[in-house]
Parts: sequence; C-alpha cells; structure tokens
Amino acid sequence: MNSIRYIRYLSREERPQWGVEVRPGVVARMPGPPWSKGSFPGAEESFEEWRRLAPVEPTKIICVGRNYLAHARELGNVAPEQPVIFMKPPSAIQHPRKPIILPRQSAEVHYEGEIAVVVGARLKRATLDQAREGVLGVTAMVDVTARDLQREDKRFTRAKGFDTFAPLGPALVTELDLTQIAITVKLDGQVVQQGNSSDMTWSIPELLVYISSIMTLEPGDVVSTGTPAGVGPMKAGQKLEVNVEGVGVLSNPIEAEAA
Amino acid sequence: MNSIRYIRYLSREERPQWGVEVRPGVVARMPGPPWSKGSFPGAEESFEEWRRLAPVEPTKIICVGRNYLAHARELGNVAPEQPVIFMKPPSAIQHPRKPIILPRQSAEVHYEGEIAVVVGARLKRATLDQAREGVLGVTAMVDVTARDLQREDKRFTRAKGFDTFAPLGPALVTELDLTQIAITVKLDGQVVQQGNSSDMTWSIPELLVYISSIMTLEPGDVVSTGTPAGVGPMKAGQKLEVNVEGVGVLSNPIEAEAA
Repeated sequence: MNSIRYIRYLSREERPQWGVEVRPGVVARMPGPPWSKGSFPGAEESFEEWRRLAPVEPTKIICVGRNYLAHARELGNVAPEQPVIFMKPPSAIQHPRKPIILPRQSAEVHYEGEIAVVVGARLKRATLDQAREGVLGVTAMVDVTARDLQREDKRFTRAKGFDTFAPLGPALVTELDLTQIAITVKLDGQVVQQGNSSDMTWSIPELLVYISSIMTLEPGDVVSTGTPAGVGPMKAGQKLEVNVEGVGVLSNPIEAEAA
Repeated sequence: MNSIRYIRYLSREERPQWGVEVRPGVVARMPGPPWSKGSFPGAEESFEEWRRLAPVEPTKIICVGRNYLAHARELGNVAPEQPVIFMKPPSAIQHPRKPIILPRQSAEVHYEGEIAVVVGARLKRATLDQAREGVLGVTAMVDVTARDLQREDKRFTRAKGFDTFAPLGPALVTELDLTQIAITVKLDGQVVQQGNSSDMTWSIPELLVYISSIMTLEPGDVVSTGTPAGVGPMKAGQKLEVNVEGVGVLSNPIEAEAA
C-alpha cells in the first residue's frame, strides 16, 4: 500500500484543519481525523508552510526511556527489564518551525530526537497483532529535557513538561515498515544523533502491548519510542532538525524565554 | 457569593452533558462548559444518579505528592523543598459510583483521597492573584496507587496510571474557601484519612503558581492537591468514600479485574 501523509494546518478560516498532503504546498481537506468514519480527503487547496501545525492533538503523550542501549549507557543507566514510561502534557506540544523555548528555570536543556507513533484505534490490553494494526502512522518528536532539573528532581514531570518541550511533525505518515525506520538529528546542520528502529530494545508493537496493559490508548494518542545515543545541550539561536525516514524533517529554532 | 454545583451527566440523548445541579435529582442543562462564553443554565430536568459522570474532561491531570507533612513521613519521606508533581492520564478517570478496578499486575493497590481543584482560565506563569482567580472550583479525587509497582519502578507513571485510577466527582463546586476545606476518607464505612486544606505545605494558589511556571494550565485541567496521612490497601468488594466538605461524597466500589 502507498503511504498517506496526514497533516494538520491552520485553514483560511484560521481554524485547525485535518488534511492529506498531496504534494508540497497542496493539501486535500478532511472533515475530521483519519480514524473517524467518513473522513475522506476532499478538494485540493494550497497552503503555506507557516500554516502547518503539529499533526495530531493527543489526549496523552507517552514517552519511553532507555529504549536504545547505547543511550541508556551514555546516561550511566543499565537496560531496564521492562520499558520505562513517562508522560508529557499536551501543553508541551510545539508546531513545526515554531521555537523550542529554553525556560528560565534551567541552564541545561537537551534535545532527544525520537520516532513517534500515533495510535489509530482504541487499544486496551492489546495483543501484538492488535498493536500492529492499531498503529495509524509515524511522525517525529523531540523529547526536550531540562537535564539539570531531571537530576535535581529524579522525577521527569517538571524536567520534560515545559511548554514547547514536545515539538511534533511535520506529517503523520502511514504504511511505513516499523522495523526499519532511520532517524537522524542535526544541531545547526551537524549530525548529533543517528538511530534506527531496528536497534530498539522493545519494538513499536511491543511498546503498545506494554502501555495498553496499563492504560487505554485512544485514537490520536502519541507514543514516543525513545532516543538513540548522542543527546546534548542546545543554546538560543541554534536550530534543531529531526529527520525521520519517510516522514521528513521536523525543524525548530531554539529561543531563550523572554524576561 | 453562593456556590454553584456544576456536574456532567449522560443526557437522555445518551451524550455527556454539562449542567448545574439545582437540587438532588434536578439539573439545569448548560450548552457548554462553565468557562465558555454564553454557557448559562437553561431549563430544569430530572436526572437519575447513575447518569452522573466525572464533572470535567481535563486535557491533563497534575497531582501533587507529599503536600501534607504527616503523609510524607508515613512513607518515610521528608518534606520536599518544592512541590513534587506528577501526572495521571485522562484515561485513568473514573465516574462516581463506578468501580475502581484492581489490575492483575498489582497485589497492593492503595487509596489516596484528595481535594482536587479545577482551573477555569488559561494560566501561564500565573501570579498568586491570577492563580486565586483562575480556580473554577473544587471536587474530590482518588489518587489510586499500585504501591508495589511504585516501589519497583521508582517512577509513578505505571503505578498511578491504570484505567479507573482517578475517580473524580461528584460535582465541581465554586466559591468554597480554599484555605479551609475538610476531607474525610472512609473504607467500608470506617474513617481512614482525615485532613484539611489548612494543613497543606503549599496552598492551592501556591501550587497553581508553581505548576503554571512550568506548563500552561488550560480551562478544565485538574490539579489534585495531595493526600493526608492514612493511606492503605483496598480489596475487591470494599467501598471507598471520599467526602470533601462542600462538595459531597465521591463513592466507588472496588473490583478485581476480570481474568
């Protein structure tokens, strides 16, 4: 099957709008999200790149820690016996090309580029097969982390929960081979992280089985699958680019918080 | 000013509906949530108690740990220097009178009765005054916790994130004195927890100032303000009741998960 590139964008009526990205700069409007019945693409229209929004509005964002062995080791951790999960609030979502804001409380904000999956069905205690079928598509996310606050708190909620700490996009792409997705992260044009979903400790369907054994996943929910080795600090004025193979480049400038 | 009791309930059209509880069994329909313009109560109608739903649909639930010194001590913790925050997923919300399900993964599920506040305005880096004015009202919540999994994981996401682990209700009540709210928790009719918001380490407005310095709070978001001393295990067949003064009793039966 061919991939579909679902996007969300600000319509001419200045409302968030679902669509299918037919080709660069051209979108076919959809009446609702891809998982709602009867939501088929309609007439084509042009859209400017600045109107692009994060490609989904999840009820929750579940993140996975230490899913690449090399990254667990670089932070002095061992590989855990089961997935380490945590949450980011929906208020942390940032749109493509919009800034990641460095909060005043932190002096050490790190990028963590990740392959994110979007769920297209309700999953509760899903089997591996149900999990595979429940994946709607793939996008890119940055698990922005205030590393100093993470060390201070031990917990993740503050360190990973600031506004703009979850850039998401640029599109939600279906029908990718989940076992072979490459990810490359660049800071100011220089490659800082490289990984492939084939190197994950837990595969994407295994993660959905684990998470859905705890909490029901709803259509549109985001599971960010962990970051490969190479995390590091960002400074105001820099640009972060996360390239997920088949999805494209999620690009965000870094800015200091206004005083 | 007089208190208003906002509720959500399943309408005769079998849809979730906002309303004002005028007196027991009688509700005045509202076209939208209390914070939306022009959402005033309309004609009165009767409703049966089983139609009552959790009184809000938040984009996020922020919980506060160790906000009563006596509870911090009973778990062997010291009072932290700043609020300890964590999140529950919206999928954990349970309606009044519906069961708290003990998941198969845990052998030790604890009640933690709490006073919860619901935000009525967008709060970002709120001042104390903005925080006070940003409180829409108060309800009751249970921060259900799989204590064995909390010990195993150190983190809270799994231990506190299961479906039904956030009972909420029975009403969202405005104009209470936030500095003097009593809470009493009963298990099978026996008092197991007692507290008062006057004993909190951080007051409700102080909590909102802290949380909104990290993440933007949206109208409808829930902040659960911590549990007093006396937490303990629940067994299938028992009944939990959380009585928040001025709000009423949030009552939930305890059930084992189906095999």
